[in-house]
Amino acid sequence: MRSIGIGVIGAGVMGAEHARIIAREVSGAHLAAVADADPARAEAAAHGGRAMTDPEALIADPSVEAVLIASPDATHQRLVLAAIAAGKPVLCEKPLAASTQECLEIVAAEARAGRPLVQTGFMRRFDPAYREMKAAIDGGALGGVRILHCQHRNLAAPAWFTGAMAVTNSLVHEIDVCRWLLSTEYSAVTVIPSPEGDPALFVFETEAGSIVSVEVFMNAAYGYHVHAEAVCAKGTVGMAHPAPIRARRDGAEEGAFPENWIPRFRDAYRIQDQAWVDGIGAGTPPADGSTAWDGLVATCLADQIVAAMETRRRTPLTLPEKPR
Amino acid sequence: MRSIGIGVIGAGVMGAEHARIIAREVSGAHLAAVADADPARAEAAAHGGRAMTDPEALIADPSVEAVLIASPDATHQRLVLAAIAAGKPVLCEKPLAASTQECLEIVAAEARAGRPLVQTGFMRRFDPAYREMKAAIDGGALGGVRILHCQHRNLAAPAWFTGAMAVTNSLVHEIDVCRWLLSTEYSAVTVIPSPEGDPALFVFETEAGSIVSVEVFMNAAYGYHVHAEAVCAKGTVGMAHPAPIRARRDGAEEGAFPENWIPRFRDAYRIQDQAWVDGIGAGTPPADGSTAWDGLVATCLADQIVAAMETRRRTPLTLPEKPR
Amino acid sequence: MRSIGIGVIGAGVMGAEHARIIAREVSGAHLAAVADADPARAEAAAHGGRAMTDPEALIADPSVEAVLIASPDATHQRLVLAAIAAGKPVLCEKPLAASTQECLEIVAAEARAGRPLVQTGFMRRFDPAYREMKAAIDGGALGGVRILHCQHRNLAAPAWFTGAMAVTNSLVHEIDVCRWLLSTEYSAVTVIPSPEGDPALFVFETEAGSIVSVEVFMNAAYGYHVHAEAVCAKGTVGMAHPAPIRARRDGAEEGAFPENWIPRFRDAYRIQDQAWVDGIGAGTPPADGSTAWDGLVATCLADQIVAAMETRRRTPLTLPEKPR
Amino acid sequence: MRSIGIGVIGAGVMGAEHARIIAREVSGAHLAAVADADPARAEAAAHGGRAMTDPEALIADPSVEAVLIASPDATHQRLVLAAIAAGKPVLCEKPLAASTQECLEIVAAEARAGRPLVQTGFMRRFDPAYREMKAAIDGGALGGVRILHCQHRNLAAPAWFTGAMAVTNSLVHEIDVCRWLLSTEYSAVTVIPSPEGDPALFVFETEAGSIVSVEVFMNAAYGYHVHAEAVCAKGTVGMAHPAPIRARRDGAEEGAFPENWIPRFRDAYRIQDQAWVDGIGAGTPPADGSTAWDGLVATCLADQIVAAMETRRRTPLTLPEKPR
Repeated sequence: MRSIGIGVIGAGVMGAEHARIIAREVSGAHLAAVADADPARAEAAAHGGRAMTDPEALIADPSVEAVLIASPDATHQRLVLAAIAAGKPVLCEKPLAASTQECLEIVAAEARAGRPLVQTGFMRRFDPAYREMKAAIDGGALGGVRILHCQHRNLAAPAWFTGAMAVTNSLVHEIDVCRWLLSTEYSAVTVIPSPEGDPALFVFETEAGSIVSVEVFMNAAYGYHVHAEAVCAKGTVGMAHPAPIRARRDGAEEGAFPENWIPRFRDAYRIQDQAWVDGIGAGTPPADGSTAWDGLVATCLADQIVAAMETRRRTPLTLPEKPR
Repeated sequence: MRSIGIGVIGAGVMGAEHARIIAREVSGAHLAAVADADPARAEAAAHGGRAMTDPEALIADPSVEAVLIASPDATHQRLVLAAIAAGKPVLCEKPLAASTQECLEIVAAEARAGRPLVQTGFMRRFDPAYREMKAAIDGGALGGVRILHCQHRNLAAPAWFTGAMAVTNSLVHEIDVCRWLLSTEYSAVTVIPSPEGDPALFVFETEAGSIVSVEVFMNAAYGYHVHAEAVCAKGTVGMAHPAPIRARRDGAEEGAFPENWIPRFRDAYRIQDQAWVDGIGAGTPPADGSTAWDGLVATCLADQIVAAMETRRRTPLTLPEKPR
Repeated sequence: MRSIGIGVIGAGVMGAEHARIIAREVSGAHLAAVADADPARAEAAAHGGRAMTDPEALIADPSVEAVLIASPDATHQRLVLAAIAAGKPVLCEKPLAASTQECLEIVAAEARAGRPLVQTGFMRRFDPAYREMKAAIDGGALGGVRILHCQHRNLAAPAWFTGAMAVTNSLVHEIDVCRWLLSTEYSAVTVIPSPEGDPALFVFETEAGSIVSVEVFMNAAYGYHVHAEAVCAKGTVGMAHPAPIRARRDGAEEGAFPENWIPRFRDAYRIQDQAWVDGIGAGTPPADGSTAWDGLVATCLADQIVAAMETRRRTPLTLPEKPR
Repeated sequence: MRSIGIGVIGAGVMGAEHARIIAREVSGAHLAAVADADPARAEAAAHGGRAMTDPEALIADPSVEAVLIASPDATHQRLVLAAIAAGKPVLCEKPLAASTQECLEIVAAEARAGRPLVQTGFMRRFDPAYREMKAAIDGGALGGVRILHCQHRNLAAPAWFTGAMAVTNSLVHEIDVCRWLLSTEYSAVTVIPSPEGDPALFVFETEAGSIVSVEVFMNAAYGYHVHAEAVCAKGTVGMAHPAPIRARRDGAEEGAFPENWIPRFRDAYRIQDQAWVDGIGAGTPPADGSTAWDGLVATCLADQIVAAMETRRRTPLTLPEKPR
């Protein structure tokens, strides 16, 4: 029975969650090793696999056939390049790298390797609600998408949060998932921040002619809530409230929201990781996965949008030439 | 038993509906007369009251103590001025007049009359859903409004519809109801039309610091649908689906939308007309009614927004000095 | 302008509400007088009309053309008979009378009067949700009703509540509205009380072959909630949550329930009272109104159901011969 | 890396689905073999594992460490006994066996084996909606359950369906899941069939004092729909509509229902099979799994309920003495 050995780098919240998914919920793979600078944290996340402190050693280890990177953002590019150099498939949490230039280096390295090795961890592409929306849109019965309305609401921004992070940490998910949903690229953005700066409204125009409107609210207070509604020529399709149950008490009927993204996207992470493993086994990455190029697009556009926040003018969005 | 004689001018769709409401659903008033250029149409709408063809004669008629204007838009200003001249309270369907200048003449005439006589027919202020939203916002428990998201969707635009009418016929309702909901004035607008022109997104900034985002879609195809959601500092409040029942059949659970605004706002029209009648009886117009000034604001801003559609630039919005 | 003078007997919660509706929300009528044993209460409810203490005097008063009875239950039959004797139309809050025999006397008195004078105040027949359900059922597209599931939940039973009152005060509404919804009569009932007695489940069989299942819960704690869902051969139709808005806060999306029946059925009461007034004006009672016979059926069946609560056996339900 | 070899018996709809889940979605196990009388069907379901025609040979095969039975009902008991005899854990689709007596033989055989080997495939216990309902109930904030309302609706009964099968094939799921949800046993049932026989209403009383009301409708026409709502002393908890998206088109907002149970319970099957595999690895069956005794209870009560359908009388429900 073929089982792929996975090494997870980073044992923080997301790294531990990925390690748990690989160890307990994914078919065709096992958790070979976990690396974290904190050995106790690595141990706690290892589910009986090897605990290490050196990520380069993990990548080099023969028991590790593929690498999942969930370490601090600043380390992503270096570790992705190391995995490519080792010829090992790698799934990297967003952001793929800190700049367009760094992302281009990854794209180039992967091209030299001669086969797709990199997947960027934009897990929403595997969320059942987004997937059913995409199926409804692609099915064609609703006609073309005219406006895609999105809300991205977090309970409360951490203390260290800066305005730009609303783009680079939060909006970046909509940047990826909406161009995937609509099968198009963005051509321009207009940013309308509220006077407090948070929330802000980002309005994109796309090459396909759709408008994408995204509210990002880092301090929405009532819970973590991601919503999308596609307004099409013949109808709309949008997300239902995500909770499977409703309670009635104290004068109201209630549907609960989670406190953060992990419960909301638990299935998406599992399905993403399974699809990644399946792709390794099959020698072909998952059709809908976010590639190195997709990771580049997200980073590249986020930078331009941060700049557009200052000017409040409609700002054309551009991408580098895509290597062949 | 005091019953106020109401004269309705115009017996088209809206005039006939108002006549029915006055005749059948409003306390403290009766339908004294209906005037329409088409005598058969006037007769059909009169519910046993007098049918006339001359609106000026209706205004002058002693049995008519108050006037409800639902005639073609181009006649509104002249008839409102005539009612003021006759010293009779008047409820005028939107628009109050065709230009800011014409509205100012009404405001001035009313000021000379020395008492409030004019109500503009922005009926949404009396819609139970909007009123409950306003009560929730004003109650303060949700904190200040940061973004107000609105959708205004019509089934299909009539053949004679032009782009500007999306503003002057449809958006004008949001112009009025959102400044009422938020108790503020608009300071700027940015228009982002879809390439087809319809739908378009209008993003307002307000003096109170809220953003108001309005999608106007004249050809939404699935039905008539008006929605609003206020995103506040501590939570949100928005409209529920308006239908009182749900059906399950053919593989789905369904909630129906009406084909146009009349079923959706049937209660709003009735409550508005009742409040207008109550105000006449009490000698004080309804606290939440749209005044002549409010009618001016809607017309004045609609003109500026139509201009802003061309430039696609963020456009400051201004109002004339309000007479004291 | 014809305006019918209405006299309201009883100025408690329901009487005051009816008086307000007649005085402020109904077309074609005015509040001529209010009678209550407590003169201050009568005065407070009279909206400028006459305040009286003697209900018989109210009925006899020439300014009173029609009588609305909302006095204590024990007085209903006597006052209804007095109104019939005076030849005045009467709308009587449920119950019409305390026993089948007393109801029969009303039916006989009305028959002797030679024209329909009595309407029983089962206001749910005028509730928009019930009416849309009935229209969907009668439209036929869903096929025949197989099961009608109902919930009737009160926040908390008053201290003086006895088990039988769950039938005579609460279930009695379902007894009336379900036979109206289904256009049939009941043939049998099976009562399954919970061990605490509250809630209890009442399962009816009907002559049309439908089952009607009603949960009555006097102490449902979370709010006042009435729900119905008709399960038909080709689909279902049921009520939506009644609130027009939804709030999100404190980790949940909420739709509120009222504390009692008055806000829930405010429209139903107004529409019922308007239909009653319209019927008086037209000389024909409203087609869907609950007649004296319907009031008898409710009282007659409630008595049999109270008896069936004891036995817990399937109990056939019978009605007296309907007089011609 | 430990991976448990699973053998699946039966490659019909459910067997093929289980084989797919084991092969593609479950961690810690692999699909060792599939047996079906039709070798092509076995081959098609084997996902590269061994295809066999003899289920006894599959059970005996050393590569098969645990057995999943999804063959025709009549074979269940014999194959479960064979697995127990081989000392191999077995997950058997419902029903566990055709009679209480046959189930008792399984319970006895398992007792002789000295460790729990049998899990009955009542997968609803692993459905996220049921699990969240149970967590809410067990959490205690809602107080004790007074009534549990259930609907079990199928699109259309197959041609070979008999009335008793509404109990043995459909209701049997509620028999299992409701006693698990409420942590109690049933004491009596009253059956109220509609005149056509379908739908029927089954009202259970429980030892804990709750009422369980179940509508079973084999020909509900609009889709496959399972719903449950627990009415508790301080509030209610029930299932939300199961679809993750909503569409608006053709005059309505829609949430879709699936055609049968497989899409509705896809997650439940996966989670059940994963929990079973995890339990084998840990040497302890899943805490919430349905045991051999639970399988017996379902079969035993189904027989009594079928008998009670005839009498329409309240029928006490009894269980054999549970072996220690």
